[in-house]
Amino acid sequence: MARIAIIGLGLIGGSLGLALKQANRPGLETIGFDIDPDVTSRARRLGAVDLEAGDLPSAVENAAVVVIATPIIHVLRVMEEMAPALLPDAIVTDTASTKRKVLRWATDHLPAGVSFVGGHPIAGKEQDGLDAAEAGLFQGRPWAVTPSLGASEQAIRTVEGLITLTGARPMVIDAEEHDSYLAGMSHLPLVVATALFALPSQSLAWPELASLAGPGFRDTTRLASTNPDLSHDICMTNRENVVHWVDRYIEELRRLRTIIADEAQRDELYKAFVRAQVERDAFLEKPPERPQGEQQDVKLPGASELLMGDFLARRMKDIEESITRVEDQGGGRRREGR
Amino acid sequence: MARIAIIGLGLIGGSLGLALKQANRPGLETIGFDIDPDVTSRARRLGAVDLEAGDLPSAVENAAVVVIATPIIHVLRVMEEMAPALLPDAIVTDTASTKRKVLRWATDHLPAGVSFVGGHPIAGKEQDGLDAAEAGLFQGRPWAVTPSLGASEQAIRTVEGLITLTGARPMVIDAEEHDSYLAGMSHLPLVVATALFALPSQSLAWPELASLAGPGFRDTTRLASTNPDLSHDICMTNRENVVHWVDRYIEELRRLRTIIADEAQRDELYKAFVRAQVERDAFLEKPPERPQGEQQDVKLPGASELLMGDFLARRMKDIEESITRVEDQGGGRRREGR
Repeated sequence: MARIAIIGLGLIGGSLGLALKQANRPGLETIGFDIDPDVTSRARRLGAVDLEAGDLPSAVENAAVVVIATPIIHVLRVMEEMAPALLPDAIVTDTASTKRKVLRWATDHLPAGVSFVGGHPIAGKEQDGLDAAEAGLFQGRPWAVTPSLGASEQAIRTVEGLITLTGARPMVIDAEEHDSYLAGMSHLPLVVATALFALPSQSLAWPELASLAGPGFRDTTRLASTNPDLSHDICMTNRENVVHWVDRYIEELRRLRTIIADEAQRDELYKAFVRAQVERDAFLEKPPERPQGEQQDVKLPGASELLMGDFLARRMKDIEESITRVEDQGGGRRREGR
Repeated sequence: MARIAIIGLGLIGGSLGLALKQANRPGLETIGFDIDPDVTSRARRLGAVDLEAGDLPSAVENAAVVVIATPIIHVLRVMEEMAPALLPDAIVTDTASTKRKVLRWATDHLPAGVSFVGGHPIAGKEQDGLDAAEAGLFQGRPWAVTPSLGASEQAIRTVEGLITLTGARPMVIDAEEHDSYLAGMSHLPLVVATALFALPSQSLAWPELASLAGPGFRDTTRLASTNPDLSHDICMTNRENVVHWVDRYIEELRRLRTIIADEAQRDELYKAFVRAQVERDAFLEKPPERPQGEQQDVKLPGASELLMGDFLARRMKDIEESITRVEDQGGGRRREGR
């Protein structure tokens, strides 16, 4: 009987337990521990874990695999406290949203024979906590795998196998790369959405502004409703990368701002909007393949350029005509006299 | 028989026609005209309009109300071309996303007896064109109403009545205010989403980045898929306001960036995330009332401050303990040695 311990039974830990239960592999049992004993016993009653543990050492002492699914900020403490109780050849993984610091903590605090293989399921939803857990949360989602230098091949394969049981796709990736890429694709959007909600909501005109909010504002600011503990912990443990991407993003905004402000650059502005639409539609239809070793059939920027050529030429002509008309009629840049 | 002419039969014009049809008011008939004759006749076959017109003058010549539902960039041309054919006391409205320039054009180009009452339904969806039109598009949505100085009370009430028939909520607002508020709540999110998609998608690492994209990235960049004609026209006709809000947004991002970069300001960072979450949840649950004349029961910022007080104090203590532990263990700012 192979035992898997799940430490932390919130949305991620609870969903992992439910997904493993649903996979229904004979010879596999789960034991759960949460800092809140009520959560631990509710998880067992919900079937998210087979057994409940009263403390951290007894949760891990007979476990072949330990999954740390606590908030990032508690991962180090969990590692320290469970280290003496781990089996000598235990495999430890986690689910934290940033990986570089977690790997460092594992190297410093887990016993030498233990294999640490970091993990990060790219999944989630607005609600969190055990009550929001569901077996299908990871279905079809990527799950980043960041092995430590000392992890055995066997340990990596075991963690990948566990991930596959949940319906997710394991993706082995270097921890530094992971943190840099996620800063761009996940942590930056979080900061962007938070600032986009903060700006009007702190305005004196917020009642008027809010009454004019449409679905676009709601969607673009959705991530501002992220659990603030998670947002804070991500920024704390991935500070340099987040700051780097925010800086690049501000540059990109400045570039757009310049061409919006300058009427003479309206062609550039239109092209920027067309490019974003065309490329995003291509992304939604078929996300680019991650290149693996040899050259893959990756969509080249040239393709959409080509596609855009004719369309752009036609539309630019149309715009020119209308704009010339508008400017002739005083609809241009001049301020109105009244 | 009161005739309503709808000029431009895309998503908005087509949905308006379908909504009026569904409202089924006796004594009301609709006539449609689109620059594409195939669209005009398809609109009639779909029941979006009762009658089809072969040209613009014949569409408006017997219409008590004319609704211009073309792209913004064509509104001026439509006004010029239809002006000689309008009834002397016709009521004209439109559906453009910006209002200041449209009002200026109406003042300059519509005959003196004609009442222009601008309109902007805060509704839409990703698809556009007649095929995406639906009777329920405006249900429960705000619809801004910006009367010109010369519009009669009767004209304003007629346009409000028409809007109410679609299920939308008419909101009379000054055109300058409209353009400033919409720049913040709609046009800024458009620019923000476009830049957020452009940044990683133009990176050489896009295949790797895209393979790690989660639902957060998708939602936050959704507006980058907006019809580029609309995005361009909005920026062209509301340039100063959009630039103003982009500048304020960059300032807000810089403020967040500063507290992310400075570990000593982690309390401020955490508070920023908590505030955004609390305020956004309050907004979703019950958007603040628009103050009308006398003082309304508007949610005060003080309420959430108060609410946050206890929670923050507890959580900050928790963070302090964990962080101190993390820093003691070398998990802090220092770069790793390997």
